[in-house]
Amino acid sequence: MPASDFDSMAHRKRHLFVCVNRRPDGTPKGSCAVRGAEELHSRLKGLLKERGLAETEVRACTSSCLDVCWVGPAIAVEPDHFVYGRVKASDVDAIVDALATGTRVERLVLGPDDFVLPREFAEKSRS
Amino acid sequence: MPASDFDSMAHRKRHLFVCVNRRPDGTPKGSCAVRGAEELHSRLKGLLKERGLAETEVRACTSSCLDVCWVGPAIAVEPDHFVYGRVKASDVDAIVDALATGTRVERLVLGPDDFVLPREFAEKSRS
Repeated sequence: MPASDFDSMAHRKRHLFVCVNRRPDGTPKGSCAVRGAEELHSRLKGLLKERGLAETEVRACTSSCLDVCWVGPAIAVEPDHFVYGRVKASDVDAIVDALATGTRVERLVLGPDDFVLPREFAEKSRS
Repeated sequence: MPASDFDSMAHRKRHLFVCVNRRPDGTPKGSCAVRGAEELHSRLKGLLKERGLAETEVRACTSSCLDVCWVGPAIAVEPDHFVYGRVKASDVDAIVDALATGTRVERLVLGPDDFVLPREFAEKSRS
């Protein structure tokens, strides 16, 4: 059935939530938008469509802050419930390849330590 | 351990993604923001904090379009991977109660038919 026969899309198997939160330039912990997240979202969306994954497999959304600014740009992959961090435009192909095969790009997956705000930023946040 | 002893939050057990996409007034299929989604997100965030769930259990983010505009406001609950639809401000307490107990508010959970764009909107979208 060609895509044009769909009245709408199904509930996708996966959702990507690309944090595009923007903090003012110079904010110590940075922000995903300042690190290029909007371009990442746009590239992901385009490539998912090009690969025929957008309509039933994966929807790439933007989101507000995922609270891991210091290791952004960050992308929550659901329902797998892991987060990619420090993502570069050059990682987009590998991310989409992994989505196509139901695997992950392990070198980009944040670990438990990555969710801890580095102390220097914590002190600045509290002051 | 009081909350102030945390340097940061953990990877939350759940993410809520409240669609806050806004389409121009008069768009036939409507949009979540026009139906009050921004207030829903704010109430959810406030209540999760008040109930002590925000730091480790559930993070309430906003997101771009979840592609179920016609049954919005919509909230994706991850990693459970279901979507609440037609959510009203008066549903927020029940949603947070359900998150606290790991259950869902069944009357708000979208079913497979809800993901299908009604034909009258499909025809308008194509024209």
